Amino acid sequence: MRELLGGKGANVAEMTRVLGAERVPAGFTITTEACVAFMNAGRREPEGLAEQVDAALAELEERAGKQLGDTGDPLLVSVRSGARDSMPGMLDTVLNLGLGDEAVEGLAGATGNERFAWDSYRRFVQMFGNVCRGVPGERFEQAIKERKGQAGVKLDTELSVDDLKALTAGFKEIYRDHTGESFPQEPREQLRQAIVAVFDSWMGDRAVEYRRINRIPDDWGTAVNVQQMVFGNKGDTSCSGVAFSRDEITGAPRPSGDFLLNAQGEDVVSGVRTPRDLHELEEVMPEAYEELLGILAELERHYGDMQDTEFTVEEGHLYMLQTRNAKRPAQAAVRFAVDAVAEGLLDKARAIMTIDAERLDALLHPAIAREAKFDVLAEGVAASPGAAKGAIVFTAADAVAAAGEERDVILVRPFTEADDVAGFHAAKGILTSEGGKASHAALVARGMGKPCVSGASALEIDVAAKTLVVNGTRLAEGDTLVIDGTAGVVTVDDVPLEEPKVSDEFETVLGWADELRRLGVRTNADTPQDAARAREFGAEGVGLCRTEHMFMAADRQPKMRRMIMAETEDERRAALDKLLPLQQEDFEGLFEEMRGLPVTIRLLDPPLHEFLPHMEDVERETERARFEQSENLDELERTLRRVHDLEETNPMLGTRGVRLGVLHPEIYEMQARAIVRAAEAVAKRSGEAPRLEIMIPLVAYEKELQLMRELVLRVVEEEGGGDLDVTIGTMIELPRACFVADRIATAADFFSFGTNDLTQTALGFSRDDVEGSFLPEYIRKKIVDRSPFETIDQPGVGWLVRLAAWTGREAKPDLKLGICGEHGGDPDSIRFFQLAGLDYVSCSPYRVPIARVAAAQAALG
Amino acid sequence: MRELLGGKGANVAEMTRVLGAERVPAGFTITTEACVAFMNAGRREPEGLAEQVDAALAELEERAGKQLGDTGDPLLVSVRSGARDSMPGMLDTVLNLGLGDEAVEGLAGATGNERFAWDSYRRFVQMFGNVCRGVPGERFEQAIKERKGQAGVKLDTELSVDDLKALTAGFKEIYRDHTGESFPQEPREQLRQAIVAVFDSWMGDRAVEYRRINRIPDDWGTAVNVQQMVFGNKGDTSCSGVAFSRDEITGAPRPSGDFLLNAQGEDVVSGVRTPRDLHELEEVMPEAYEELLGILAELERHYGDMQDTEFTVEEGHLYMLQTRNAKRPAQAAVRFAVDAVAEGLLDKARAIMTIDAERLDALLHPAIAREAKFDVLAEGVAASPGAAKGAIVFTAADAVAAAGEERDVILVRPFTEADDVAGFHAAKGILTSEGGKASHAALVARGMGKPCVSGASALEIDVAAKTLVVNGTRLAEGDTLVIDGTAGVVTVDDVPLEEPKVSDEFETVLGWADELRRLGVRTNADTPQDAARAREFGAEGVGLCRTEHMFMAADRQPKMRRMIMAETEDERRAALDKLLPLQQEDFEGLFEEMRGLPVTIRLLDPPLHEFLPHMEDVERETERARFEQSENLDELERTLRRVHDLEETNPMLGTRGVRLGVLHPEIYEMQARAIVRAAEAVAKRSGEAPRLEIMIPLVAYEKELQLMRELVLRVVEEEGGGDLDVTIGTMIELPRACFVADRIATAADFFSFGTNDLTQTALGFSRDDVEGSFLPEYIRKKIVDRSPFETIDQPGVGWLVRLAAWTGREAKPDLKLGICGEHGGDPDSIRFFQLAGLDYVSCSPYRVPIARVAAAQAALG
Repeated sequence: MRELLGGKGANVAEMTRVLGAERVPAGFTITTEACVAFMNAGRREPEGLAEQVDAALAELEERAGKQLGDTGDPLLVSVRSGARDSMPGMLDTVLNLGLGDEAVEGLAGATGNERFAWDSYRRFVQMFGNVCRGVPGERFEQAIKERKGQAGVKLDTELSVDDLKALTAGFKEIYRDHTGESFPQEPREQLRQAIVAVFDSWMGDRAVEYRRINRIPDDWGTAVNVQQMVFGNKGDTSCSGVAFSRDEITGAPRPSGDFLLNAQGEDVVSGVRTPRDLHELEEVMPEAYEELLGILAELERHYGDMQDTEFTVEEGHLYMLQTRNAKRPAQAAVRFAVDAVAEGLLDKARAIMTIDAERLDALLHPAIAREAKFDVLAEGVAASPGAAKGAIVFTAADAVAAAGEERDVILVRPFTEADDVAGFHAAKGILTSEGGKASHAALVARGMGKPCVSGASALEIDVAAKTLVVNGTRLAEGDTLVIDGTAGVVTVDDVPLEEPKVSDEFETVLGWADELRRLGVRTNADTPQDAARAREFGAEGVGLCRTEHMFMAADRQPKMRRMIMAETEDERRAALDKLLPLQQEDFEGLFEEMRGLPVTIRLLDPPLHEFLPHMEDVERETERARFEQSENLDELERTLRRVHDLEETNPMLGTRGVRLGVLHPEIYEMQARAIVRAAEAVAKRSGEAPRLEIMIPLVAYEKELQLMRELVLRVVEEEGGGDLDVTIGTMIELPRACFVADRIATAADFFSFGTNDLTQTALGFSRDDVEGSFLPEYIRKKIVDRSPFETIDQPGVGWLVRLAAWTGREAKPDLKLGICGEHGGDPDSIRFFQLAGLDYVSCSPYRVPIARVAAAQAALG
Repeated sequence: MRELLGGKGANVAEMTRVLGAERVPAGFTITTEACVAFMNAGRREPEGLAEQVDAALAELEERAGKQLGDTGDPLLVSVRSGARDSMPGMLDTVLNLGLGDEAVEGLAGATGNERFAWDSYRRFVQMFGNVCRGVPGERFEQAIKERKGQAGVKLDTELSVDDLKALTAGFKEIYRDHTGESFPQEPREQLRQAIVAVFDSWMGDRAVEYRRINRIPDDWGTAVNVQQMVFGNKGDTSCSGVAFSRDEITGAPRPSGDFLLNAQGEDVVSGVRTPRDLHELEEVMPEAYEELLGILAELERHYGDMQDTEFTVEEGHLYMLQTRNAKRPAQAAVRFAVDAVAEGLLDKARAIMTIDAERLDALLHPAIAREAKFDVLAEGVAASPGAAKGAIVFTAADAVAAAGEERDVILVRPFTEADDVAGFHAAKGILTSEGGKASHAALVARGMGKPCVSGASALEIDVAAKTLVVNGTRLAEGDTLVIDGTAGVVTVDDVPLEEPKVSDEFETVLGWADELRRLGVRTNADTPQDAARAREFGAEGVGLCRTEHMFMAADRQPKMRRMIMAETEDERRAALDKLLPLQQEDFEGLFEEMRGLPVTIRLLDPPLHEFLPHMEDVERETERARFEQSENLDELERTLRRVHDLEETNPMLGTRGVRLGVLHPEIYEMQARAIVRAAEAVAKRSGEAPRLEIMIPLVAYEKELQLMRELVLRVVEEEGGGDLDVTIGTMIELPRACFVADRIATAADFFSFGTNDLTQTALGFSRDDVEGSFLPEYIRKKIVDRSPFETIDQPGVGWLVRLAAWTGREAKPDLKLGICGEHGGDPDSIRFFQLAGLDYVSCSPYRVPIARVAAAQAALG
């Protein structure tokens, strides 16, 4: 009925149908059809409308037991717009309609609250004048300001009854002055004008613009909802409150909530008076309390979800004003789902749909104890969830040293880079003063499941001095710090942390998810530790092992640099021969953990200069060596030349990925050899090898993949790896690759979508640059609704994914399709990947449980 | 008939049909069908093949008047493969078939050249053994090596007749040793085996791989061409030569060519003997000469193009061996086209199709005089055509200073950057030691029509010392240098330069092009000078004016920097107010030149840090200021901070284009204001304004364009520009924009495809980085056939263009579509843009005539 009644009208109607007419303030809805007829007739009220409104109003008065304009206890109504789709703030509303010079006295008598009555009246005049007759809002505001000046008060609430009376009189003057008419005292005329005003608001500039942007057709029209207003402030047999059908924190099957006697809804939430616990209502109004509990259970049954309601008791009569599915923390969501199935309220599929998968994150990381009180030292971006406590260190090397001594540390840096990755492993958490959710620090931290607060811009970090100053507080290396990457805050208070545990309920839900989902769930893991953790969390394989992280370790870097500095192929091969056993060792560790499961290994991807020192540093060192006539000078000058040679203006679009493999096949050859040897060693030791999926990154042309495929197959043959299960595929991360996916598929056993880089190229957004610069402004100006690095951009990046999936499968029907970008752990994106026909998603270990639930929801929805 | 006869068979058949059987060495073709039957039957010769070959051979012997294996004057034949599409080098060929121990003596007698006869025989044994029986080539090579050792000679040609006889005997031994059979003396058996060998070569590894890559179906099969061999070395009534139907340098309507009496074709081209001018043949063989001239005219008539032929006269009888359309320099192509129409040989449309539009470039730039001899000092990349002479300068500032004194200079730099653009204007030409065809230097130089040689890596440039060393030669500032950007060479010799002139013939051709083309042709121009030159060359408007170039001028930079350094919006607006009149002045100059024509002005595009000094430089200056306790220190430190703030990892994907407009609307506002004021001023002065097309760069989201459209329209209204013809559009240069082109179109009057950036993002190629790194290797390995920055990548970038054109026009049928990337001046790309339905192309001024011709060719199909 949304089309005819609009969203709001339909909701009220549904609640009325479930609970019966006596439980919901009475009302009626003028349909969208009437609005359309009004517009089509050139702003003339359609024939018969007046009569129908009269009839409906008579019925409403009958049901409410009150009359509009009554001088004893008058019926007041709200007049609200209600479009088919919600258009928040775009259409107009009039409250307290029905008040006039006489009715106000009736309201004062009936509520025993003269101030409330007059305040309602002056609000009504103001709202009606502004909405229905276009009286400029500033004129009323000005009058209020003047009145407060005369009364010598600052707040509206400090105005006395007499002030309000005078103000109402003034408002009516303003009304007459602007419209040339007296303020209408006849409630039916008020209602007629209000209905026309709501119709008109549909064609107002704001609404037209909103529909253009949101692609809502102009000819839908809006419905008009006329509803009785009820009052919880009519004395001690009246109250207002909010009620949840279950405990909103724990999910325990007992209603919770607050209420205030002799109060209106606003008073409960405003915090001016301290509300009472819902269950105390049992003593005060046992009947209403019983009714409420029954209604909560009924609403839960009807909506099939935990409910969050508002209610008012007006002189002993319980009204339900609103109900909606309750937002709830992760533990409550899980508890509800499991209980609901046990109670027979929901089946597993419906139960799992009530969980907000994204929020499950909170169950998988340490947290600051809920009851802890602390002062926030600085705020930043909640870049990677979880809390961590440790001593401050300022360099990756110091973090590694501390980890060697089993000290807990927090790595604090202005920003981080590839060099710092060893420090991430060693630290308990990461804190940076620059960068956002997609900064290097955030990405790596999330990948490892380390808590991270980034972009805490109040921090002034002096790495050289190993100090940090924040809002006047000076901290040095070794001082203890706690960061909360879930909330994005930092404190020096010694707050207790709570370890996460996967509860029995959570395990139950995950089990259902596995029964229900179609998408596979793998993990991105570069180390045996990550792989083991992910397997515990239910990962069905590794979807992305980034081999370059293996070269970042302290003992690898000099060997890697020797390889890059090589001036001939022979020299390079010699250097690679030294790296081979180390690389093999790394793979063996990973493969042990993943025996029997597929493991996708991406060959070297980043540009080589990422493994060399920074140019500034080499420049400085070289300059110093010149002064000191150091014998290192030659070596340093060689390094400097190489760093210059490899420097790139836009490294993201430079010599990386398969381009390295084409230029220096010997690097990929070494890696392929290490992979095959490691798999054979693990198979020999344990009787079971992993299923190898060797992945070539950044392919744009089919020939690139053909060349690398031949290379890998040759190495497999040379190493006698014929018994291994080896497939070769590519990462699809460039727009061109999506357009020629059919050609690329001829040389690929699988595609894995690298949606991070696909987002960077399709949108022209450098992840390292945009988060700190224009993206926040873009979100503020509603150009985008959230970062395309968090949730996949469907119109652009999503189409590229679909295109490649379609055409790739057209050329090779059994092509395996996966995704290994950050989006692999994002529930909204997972829904999209299910639609696009992918076989699996891969995400960081800590997101694996979330992805399992989200995949089940995607399969169901 | 290509499908049945293959390419080569069809060509010979066509020439035979045109000239008659007696003019083309006789032959026959075994169809592709026979090959298919052979393969399908499991390598068995299809039934009836032997009989048909016998019959065809008998006919050939009849027509040739010679017998295969004859001991007097034997018929020799070639056996060649001929697939439907050319597969160069992939299939096998056997020459001189028919020779045996007796026939060789007959050949020696008939040619009077015993050495030739025996050399032919030993080659035949070698070729037959290798191709038909798989005897390894090295075994024959080894035998030749040994023989040369015994004879004490170094070259094959120094071997005596007796050596050759011994070598042939040895080859036959090798043959027997490898195959277990004697070398077949029976010519019909030789022929049978050769035919089977050609069939087999279709399924050889090389051919299969070639077809896979080039997507040629396996089941096409190859034809086999058997053709009589003819000899121009049978004494003084024989000769071989090459002949063009017109002068191949000037295009003048008189045949040209070379010949050698008593010689084979190889001798004419090898340069061992100096060939004689074609027309001397009239004295020696007047009859053959007359016949040849007639044939050349006939071939021209038949093929409708200037011909490049090979001929042999064997004992007075003229044979035509090959004819093809002649490659020719630009002036000859233009001359031929105009003459051909005048002669009634071709109509205008066919005549214009004979021109290689790309080569016309040579007619539009100064060149080193054709007759000049000089030593090449260094070679580099032919980055921007034309020659230039001038004194060396090493900095843009020096170039500007020299231009002020009207001195001609060549700007010599390791590489160039945005800062150097003023120097480009001032210099006659640009020479760099780094970078390729898509380097900054190359792009800017081509845009301005300045000659440029880039990547001359032998140059060691010391900018600080203002010297350059190249292969031992040391040059200093002020030394004269000549660069030739057409050939990519540098010399210090004082060679004369020739100025280009658009000849009357060229004007005629351009006039035809304008009648025939559908695509409009505009120019990319940032200055009045460029605009004026392009208008002379026939440009119909400006398709891209890059406003940032206006801020690079020396008097603008400090003001621009002040704008960027502004810390508040007010400060920035004050700085912009100072820039406004300068910007307006620039636009007025451009608009004067383009009165009445459309001018597309792109609002500021590059990231702001491009206008600030380099970080290294500021770091160094700041450090010095610290030492010297300079009063500039504060200012420098501020600059340094701002440079750090604005630094980007991948500037190509950072805060630029419309993102600047969203972050700092006041910049675009100033530009829009300057544009409108300038147009009004020009309209007032001259009575005619240009048609303004204001272009917003780098749009990815429709909302970006909506915001900027509102901003521009507001400024137009504020400036009272209601009478001006103003449209607002966007540059389509991101893949996402192509996918949402329908939405973007709702806020756009036009799209202009920025194919440079679209190539960078779709392929993940940073133009600044890839040309010098992996692209050369990619071309070498045939991953790409040429740089995607020269000719549009159709499968990727091309699809994005089509997609945006389709969906954009779907949403707005009258959307104007243009292209302003480098590809706008590339004939192959222009053909694509015509197909994609674009309205116009825009290119640098010097490419406008080329684009006009290419657009006509594209319209003709």
